Amino acid sequence: MSSGSPDSSDSPPSAAAHLLVASNRGPLSFTERDDGTLDADRGGGGLVTGLSSLGTDDVVWVCAALSDGDRTAARRVEGGRLDRDGHDTGGMAVRMLDIDPATFHRAYNAIANSTLWFVHHMLYAMPTAPAFDASFRREWASYRTYNQAFAEALAEDAAEGAKVLVQDYHLTLLPRLLRDLRPDLRIAHFSHTPWAPVDYFRVLPEDVARQTLLGMLGADHAGFHSLRWARAFAACCAALLGAEVDDTRVTYDGHTTGLGIHPLGVDAESLRARGHEDDVESRLTALRGKLGDRKAIVRVDRTELSKNISRGLLAYRELLRRYPHWRGKVTHLASAYPSRHDLPEYREYTAQVQRMAVEIENEFGTDDWRPIVLDVTDDYARSLALYRVGDVLLVNPVRDGMNLVAKEVPLLSEDGCVVVLSTEAGVADEFGEDALLVNPFDVSGTADALDRALSMADDDRAARTRRLAEVSVRLPPSQWLADQVDALD
Amino acid sequence: MSSGSPDSSDSPPSAAAHLLVASNRGPLSFTERDDGTLDADRGGGGLVTGLSSLGTDDVVWVCAALSDGDRTAARRVEGGRLDRDGHDTGGMAVRMLDIDPATFHRAYNAIANSTLWFVHHMLYAMPTAPAFDASFRREWASYRTYNQAFAEALAEDAAEGAKVLVQDYHLTLLPRLLRDLRPDLRIAHFSHTPWAPVDYFRVLPEDVARQTLLGMLGADHAGFHSLRWARAFAACCAALLGAEVDDTRVTYDGHTTGLGIHPLGVDAESLRARGHEDDVESRLTALRGKLGDRKAIVRVDRTELSKNISRGLLAYRELLRRYPHWRGKVTHLASAYPSRHDLPEYREYTAQVQRMAVEIENEFGTDDWRPIVLDVTDDYARSLALYRVGDVLLVNPVRDGMNLVAKEVPLLSEDGCVVVLSTEAGVADEFGEDALLVNPFDVSGTADALDRALSMADDDRAARTRRLAEVSVRLPPSQWLADQVDALD
Repeated sequence: MSSGSPDSSDSPPSAAAHLLVASNRGPLSFTERDDGTLDADRGGGGLVTGLSSLGTDDVVWVCAALSDGDRTAARRVEGGRLDRDGHDTGGMAVRMLDIDPATFHRAYNAIANSTLWFVHHMLYAMPTAPAFDASFRREWASYRTYNQAFAEALAEDAAEGAKVLVQDYHLTLLPRLLRDLRPDLRIAHFSHTPWAPVDYFRVLPEDVARQTLLGMLGADHAGFHSLRWARAFAACCAALLGAEVDDTRVTYDGHTTGLGIHPLGVDAESLRARGHEDDVESRLTALRGKLGDRKAIVRVDRTELSKNISRGLLAYRELLRRYPHWRGKVTHLASAYPSRHDLPEYREYTAQVQRMAVEIENEFGTDDWRPIVLDVTDDYARSLALYRVGDVLLVNPVRDGMNLVAKEVPLLSEDGCVVVLSTEAGVADEFGEDALLVNPFDVSGTADALDRALSMADDDRAARTRRLAEVSVRLPPSQWLADQVDALD
Repeated sequence: MSSGSPDSSDSPPSAAAHLLVASNRGPLSFTERDDGTLDADRGGGGLVTGLSSLGTDDVVWVCAALSDGDRTAARRVEGGRLDRDGHDTGGMAVRMLDIDPATFHRAYNAIANSTLWFVHHMLYAMPTAPAFDASFRREWASYRTYNQAFAEALAEDAAEGAKVLVQDYHLTLLPRLLRDLRPDLRIAHFSHTPWAPVDYFRVLPEDVARQTLLGMLGADHAGFHSLRWARAFAACCAALLGAEVDDTRVTYDGHTTGLGIHPLGVDAESLRARGHEDDVESRLTALRGKLGDRKAIVRVDRTELSKNISRGLLAYRELLRRYPHWRGKVTHLASAYPSRHDLPEYREYTAQVQRMAVEIENEFGTDDWRPIVLDVTDDYARSLALYRVGDVLLVNPVRDGMNLVAKEVPLLSEDGCVVVLSTEAGVADEFGEDALLVNPFDVSGTADALDRALSMADDDRAARTRRLAEVSVRLPPSQWLADQVDALD
């Protein structure tokens, strides 16, 4: 099926890039057609936008092949260099690593998404999970192999003294592995997730916890969305390694890693353009027809255990029970598009959310009023239409690195939208009291906040939305990326 | 059914006690016979032993009626003063509060055992639990009522300047409520549980979290089994209240609460006496007959979500898989007696543990070897026989205030017993490297520790057991209690 980790003897000559990016998901993905040809899909996201604005001539983006289609594409050209195979990579060199599928599966699903994600978001049911057994040891070895494949590819392609931007919890070991190969490089790591508090991080086996921290500390700069996550990381380094830490740096074994707070913002122009394309307009018209003069509480999330869709539905139910004057006057438009359905917990969670929506429909629905419309399909244009039409946005994650939906909605909202926001989302640092902050575990408190949001005077709502929109564009992706590059000087 | 909280106009004249104890469970419990008469059962435990040694003439113990039998007994005499109704209370005045059963149920099951216990032991499956909804608010109100009932009873019975010892997470609001009624009293609180780290404690609704901390800070002295739990409490006071804290005190709003570390130990004499009674001897003989010359890994726990019986079984399975030379040479004698079967999570957990034991039996059992004997009945004499016969004791809680089993076994062990011990139990502070410390989530690490324990040389095992026995009697219940009384001077 696969060639395993890249073998340097087969690789193309060094691209001698001066800026390199490493992330699990790259800017392109491929689907294999029945006739064996490949459909390429260009992704968006902050990283793509940001890189374009930095100039891409001298950039290599190293990513993993995520699917069979990706693997086919990566194998067609030496070293997985998609840009040399006629694909539109936006001017960048893109190198897609063809990692053995079983190794990739263990690294990505078992370690990154089922272990590190769960630790940093505090998602485990601790009486029985996690259980770090012999299987876990094999999975952890695969995670090292996966990180090592990135390190070798980057080491090959980097010019002397080049800067490397490593993304997220998939690649926590990479900074150290890369530094061991190429001590001349300047390495930054960015965590898009929260970081676990010490007492939660310590669930990891001691050697795994240490390797994770030491891996990160191979970087010269470690970036986070929020000071809270940076402090949690530093606290883990102090408690588990005995490192010397403050809010700006961690020093261990003679090397200092600077800590940086880079709260990613939104590219207003491209979002507004996309948010007014025809497909969004038509969905908006349809939504408005259904809503009539009812108010809309919207939410848009991946169906992700950390997003707290279930307590959001409980809060909406409690709103309708305790504030009955809202019955018939409000509709909850909840978009919960599928995510990580490889993992049984996620399938069960989706099913549970669907059952809860049916219960609310059964308890309150009437012939001429649907209290809730839950959509579990992935329709980006519909999500953007929800952004525009919502009177209230509910963003109540149990823990969230940042949450960009909260930043996007104020930019697209037509008539102003009150954001009911979890204190446990990184964005709460920046929004403060301009949002209505809630404890995400407090269903009653969330119901009260929804009532307050629905009751808010138009001018107050509009003024808050304006201020939130200003905050949301403070650090657009281009600047966010440039700041991290600058931090390496 | 019940008289609700005590009404001071109906109460007996003040007993004017100089030392008062408040705990949910008292020293006596009652079962109603079919003919309406009551069977009284005298409990043991550190508090009973400790109080006896302090002299009981001037003591009032206030507790709650826990069952219908208790309520009947409490209602037979004014103010629930059991000692005035001919019951053997060991010379103490015992006042059993007849709290409305529905109120008691909400306070005890919903708040104390399903909320505060879960928070301090970090037991929630956070994607969906806890969900603090309108029902929770009623439950919390009941918890306040329950604490208030204790406060009123204590306020009635306490002499001017008396000392009051408040026990555990059932009664966190009591110190403040009592101080409000009787500012002259000297109040100590002791937490037998761990304390949650800040990021976990914050799952509680803000007002509930504050009331809990402020309740505790009504005490002049707050005692814990471990410095780690005291620091966690202080950290919560600093983070949520802005209190001034160090390792020895918390100051908030002009009042200082001293922090004390009182790691409860064992009364060796009474344990050894009980451990050699006839019922224990006969069970020991039976166990030895079954074991033959096989080594015994023992565990004795309530079937409690925090005790980590499930990962213990996984570790034992991994031991037999990865160290096959132990097959046929070792038996795991696991006593997991029933606990909190009012709560569905606990019933399911017991069933799960039983299924896992059957799986191990099916995977490894032979005609002449049962790899595991799981006993889910409550038989104290059998537990003590396990203490005496075990070569290895497995104590692997995910989080535990102290864990007294780990301290009792070294005192009763016949031939020395290696303690494989979770780093997350309070007792790990005192045992250190004389136990084999394990991360309770690390199944493979626990399996390795079991192998090491089984392989240990006799003299090493005996020497460790001797040292552990010395540590275990360092602070017997009488001294533990006396220290807390002294701390109030």
